[in-house]
Amino acid sequence: MLGRDYPEQNCSVARALEVVGERWTLLILRDAFLGVTRFDRFARKLGIGESVLARRLAVLVDAGVMERRPYQGNRFDYVLTDRGRELFPVIHGLLSWGDAHFAPDGPPVLTRHLGCGGELLPGPRCAACGADVGSDEVEWRWGPGSGRAEATIAPRAARPLA
Amino acid sequence: MLGRDYPEQNCSVARALEVVGERWTLLILRDAFLGVTRFDRFARKLGIGESVLARRLAVLVDAGVMERRPYQGNRFDYVLTDRGRELFPVIHGLLSWGDAHFAPDGPPVLTRHLGCGGELLPGPRCAACGADVGSDEVEWRWGPGSGRAEATIAPRAARPLA
Repeated sequence: MLGRDYPEQNCSVARALEVVGERWTLLILRDAFLGVTRFDRFARKLGIGESVLARRLAVLVDAGVMERRPYQGNRFDYVLTDRGRELFPVIHGLLSWGDAHFAPDGPPVLTRHLGCGGELLPGPRCAACGADVGSDEVEWRWGPGSGRAEATIAPRAARPLA
Repeated sequence: MLGRDYPEQNCSVARALEVVGERWTLLILRDAFLGVTRFDRFARKLGIGESVLARRLAVLVDAGVMERRPYQGNRFDYVLTDRGRELFPVIHGLLSWGDAHFAPDGPPVLTRHLGCGGELLPGPRCAACGADVGSDEVEWRWGPGSGRAEATIAPRAARPLA
């Protein structure tokens, strides 16, 4: 079972961070997206102790983000599941933001659309009209999991930064 | 000055996490996107101590993610800067992933495109051809900030999960 790091927060961001918000976990996932699967290679690339890495991987396996696949005797590959691959927007968002603001010599790593070669733009975009949606173009409402009857979160929430 | 939480990592994901990877920080940003600006309201919504909140806000201000705006005597609003608003893809990615996998009663909060009302789909998408790009459609190469001459990161990195 996962702990509840943010027990008072009825929020999907908090629930997500209970799985991926620990120190090193998002860098483990970054390496998994880059193709790393072996325990030793994660440990070497990250420079972290085996016990920390083992704990982080165990949380990810418990949460269905990675799976262990035997490859030789009692050794395992750690591979992203579908649920894990759905975290790519988060990793790409962090990468893109770090490149924009904290990479004075240019991006250490470039991501391109395989085949077409185009640059990747972070999301989100609108499923109805297709527009890229910035944070000042978002309407926030309470949803079914909130246990609240009213829809509107706050009078100014629709344009929090106007 | 920011500390280097991941000093051995020449990586924009690591640099981004040095700013936003601390416990509570991404939830502070979530509330900022929802329109919260006052110290007391952040503290009450998050249920965290004032000293932790003050430290987290100071890091965000130092990093240019939020700015302090005086509103009354020696009181301040904490408001996202442009650099802070560019973290929306990360927050939306976590929200969307938490909704999909850890919200059995449905999403606590709904996000819609203001005006059009469409649902938001997480990114990234290709700037050239417009396609939504999943993690198995990404080519990873070393960039100018890597200090490496070769371009390809690893033979299997283009399709790490094939």
